[in-house]
Amino acid sequence: MDIRIERDEDGARRAVYRQIADQIRDAVARGSLGAGERLPAIRGLAAALGVNRDTVSLAYELLVRDGLLEATVGRGTFVRDQRGFRSDPRPAPPFAQSVERLLQFERARPSYAAVDGAVPLHALTPDPSLYPLDSFRRSLDRVLESSGSELLVYGEHQGSFDLRQSIAQRLATHQLAAAPEQIVLCQGASQGIYLAMRLFAEPGDWVAVEEPTYHNVLTALVALGLRAAPIPMTADGPDLDVLARTLARPEVKLFYTMPSFHNPLGATTTTAHRRALIEIAARLGKPIVEDGFEMDLRYAGEPVPPLAALDAHDLVVHLFSFSKSLFPGVRIGAITARGRSMEGLLALKNASDLSGAMILQAAVADFVNAGEYERHLSGLRKTLRKRRDAMIEGLIAHMPANARWTVPVGGYQLWLELPGEMDTRSLFSEAKHAGVLFAPGYQFHHDGRPSNAMRLTTALADTGEIERGIEILGRVVKRHLTHARRTARDRNVHV
Amino acid sequence: MDIRIERDEDGARRAVYRQIADQIRDAVARGSLGAGERLPAIRGLAAALGVNRDTVSLAYELLVRDGLLEATVGRGTFVRDQRGFRSDPRPAPPFAQSVERLLQFERARPSYAAVDGAVPLHALTPDPSLYPLDSFRRSLDRVLESSGSELLVYGEHQGSFDLRQSIAQRLATHQLAAAPEQIVLCQGASQGIYLAMRLFAEPGDWVAVEEPTYHNVLTALVALGLRAAPIPMTADGPDLDVLARTLARPEVKLFYTMPSFHNPLGATTTTAHRRALIEIAARLGKPIVEDGFEMDLRYAGEPVPPLAALDAHDLVVHLFSFSKSLFPGVRIGAITARGRSMEGLLALKNASDLSGAMILQAAVADFVNAGEYERHLSGLRKTLRKRRDAMIEGLIAHMPANARWTVPVGGYQLWLELPGEMDTRSLFSEAKHAGVLFAPGYQFHHDGRPSNAMRLTTALADTGEIERGIEILGRVVKRHLTHARRTARDRNVHV
Repeated sequence: MDIRIERDEDGARRAVYRQIADQIRDAVARGSLGAGERLPAIRGLAAALGVNRDTVSLAYELLVRDGLLEATVGRGTFVRDQRGFRSDPRPAPPFAQSVERLLQFERARPSYAAVDGAVPLHALTPDPSLYPLDSFRRSLDRVLESSGSELLVYGEHQGSFDLRQSIAQRLATHQLAAAPEQIVLCQGASQGIYLAMRLFAEPGDWVAVEEPTYHNVLTALVALGLRAAPIPMTADGPDLDVLARTLARPEVKLFYTMPSFHNPLGATTTTAHRRALIEIAARLGKPIVEDGFEMDLRYAGEPVPPLAALDAHDLVVHLFSFSKSLFPGVRIGAITARGRSMEGLLALKNASDLSGAMILQAAVADFVNAGEYERHLSGLRKTLRKRRDAMIEGLIAHMPANARWTVPVGGYQLWLELPGEMDTRSLFSEAKHAGVLFAPGYQFHHDGRPSNAMRLTTALADTGEIERGIEILGRVVKRHLTHARRTARDRNVHV
Repeated sequence: MDIRIERDEDGARRAVYRQIADQIRDAVARGSLGAGERLPAIRGLAAALGVNRDTVSLAYELLVRDGLLEATVGRGTFVRDQRGFRSDPRPAPPFAQSVERLLQFERARPSYAAVDGAVPLHALTPDPSLYPLDSFRRSLDRVLESSGSELLVYGEHQGSFDLRQSIAQRLATHQLAAAPEQIVLCQGASQGIYLAMRLFAEPGDWVAVEEPTYHNVLTALVALGLRAAPIPMTADGPDLDVLARTLARPEVKLFYTMPSFHNPLGATTTTAHRRALIEIAARLGKPIVEDGFEMDLRYAGEPVPPLAALDAHDLVVHLFSFSKSLFPGVRIGAITARGRSMEGLLALKNASDLSGAMILQAAVADFVNAGEYERHLSGLRKTLRKRRDAMIEGLIAHMPANARWTVPVGGYQLWLELPGEMDTRSLFSEAKHAGVLFAPGYQFHHDGRPSNAMRLTTALADTGEIERGIEILGRVVKRHLTHARRTARDRNVHV
């Protein structure tokens, strides 16, 4: 069976799983796939297409649902005998409207599948080859040895006291004073974002977000039935005039912001900007959700206190995560909140999933307390610094003169803006085939409108790969710009 | 400092943390706690009062927020110098209205603190002394040895394929055919409940629930802005006439049900009742959320297929959990859904917290595949059968003649109804001081109205403790009933 995935450089924006499902449906209709024939195994097809297994699963699942395929546990998926098949299957029970909107939103933002051999400058997953696996295993062993079954009962809603204490001590190194009682653990910063927005906003309310911003925040907004009020990013950070006007609107309930190592921009605001931002929020009595997802990853410049450290009015709900600085797989983040907010967050955490896995929380606490986290950070920061330098040198060497980029002082990501009105989506396929992956900028816009920028990361590629990737990207960009100029000139001729 | 906790046998229903906070506030007002004085350590006070540390933390936290106390990391919590304290502190940013409602709901349902030495017939946490800790550690070691860092990156939204495959095989033993593609892993059945209700219902919608029902479902409903439409439980299961009338209302979007080993009733419905229930749902096109949280814990009688196995219309979303049959601390449940529902569930899971911890999922998959889960279940079922027998014998021996109880065929819980119009809340304190704990029935009512029943569990107490506990409970109940009769007679004399 010949299945081809076209990613959306053609503007069609069709989700990959739908493309797979449609091509199988066509093959059955044409008769090239007959009743009883076995479909390729999900793993195999996913690998052949260079897509996630879930994508293939979902395509098969849709077709099973439609009665075209049937899945048999342990045997595989087969084309169903269509004789006697009900011609008007009963419709599935309707989803909540907000879920339909969420699905529409996701369909309009396909994710891009990696291909083997291409330099991965698109991803924000920390490099598994850098994980301190052995020392983490020792921590896991130690806590199971000492606490055993105690770690396998339900945990407190708030999460392991030991880990909250360790996190409080870490936050103190960022000038952020918080007691363990002011911290609740959550499933990565992701759940923190969801719970913190939920705390202050009802469906129909608005949330101020930076533009561009972390694309999963936009997904969480849609899932919560909230609307995004974009605050443009300037060279200094979020535009404070627009922010003040936006937060003054009663229907705007909070501001979500990433003041350090912004995703996707890689930018960090100054203490003065932060003070002014807090001042606006305090004047208007609006809460701020500060995402410090990479706060432990500064590798250059002077530390700047988090917004939460400058907040005298209990307005800032602060998010911390181990996902970027240790590994995402433990699914541990922390929400720090003062005052009454903790009461609401605990109630929401309880209603959502009761509590996290104490065994992992205890292992991470042991890991931190044994000094292993600090040791790991120290190496990781050096690596990130080298990778950033390689990327910046590559950009200087290979990008056209009128391209611009940010120079981050921490974290994994930077923002590359190309000249002109191009849409970086249109570069993606060419770049991928040439051997480099990036995250097109439109994904970080609340309305998905085109962007002439892209996010590049140093998460998965080492310095050698970064050099190679940026060189390839430079060639692709220059070729594209030349072509665009030529097209524009030709068009002028004909006009 | 002398703090006393009164639980709500007096009908005051005040949350324990508020009682603690109020007494500290009074002590400061009276001057018996002066500026700069140090409050007891949270752990110590929690232990002394027999309450959870979080409860004390929250009380302190409220008072820090009010400016009465100040918390210093690593040093403790102190009474703040009140001179110069702002007399009208700026109000905290308002919560979403639905969060306020959630907090009100939680305050009206205080949880009862266990005391050392009392027989724990109230809890639904499986007995840690029965956990197969060593074999689970071996599984954890094995997967870390073989997969290492791969398990510490972000997992698929849907969860480990290996574990979904293992769960599919287990479900098949319950006559429930499901492919791994039709399963999404979640944080225990708790998150499954939240996501499944969210899939079909918007804030303001209604959800049909059994009455009595699992109290955390009622919490999740409030958190989601949904309303409960109670379906009375008969001796056969949920009243199907009421169910049909209720599901016919357009604003009622789904039915949440526990057909096997119902919590709190301990009752199991017949296949005929299940077929009739499915027929109603199919006729009205309304989805069913079937909670199979204890499905692997049958220890008597003949297996009955889950609703999902009888469903030909893709109406049932089925929940499975390892929390009661293995241990809760891995926080792993599974949602099985056919047709389009999976697409919506994956989008909601992604928006809520991205994914679960693959390391724990892989360890549980290894544990199941090594046959250890089956081995553990086999022993656990025998233990539960013995404990149930001890409890039933105790009830026969010690309860008054007109008390009634259910006789479960699986799981941990049964339901004891006492004669007359009493409220079992009024027994709680006396029973606790006499040495036995139970879960008062009002907690399982959607409106918290009084109940003459209680849930008793065999989760944490062994047979000897169960015998002792039921004997104590019998004495307390009889004394209470005698007293109630005497009071009624005296009242009659005066009338």
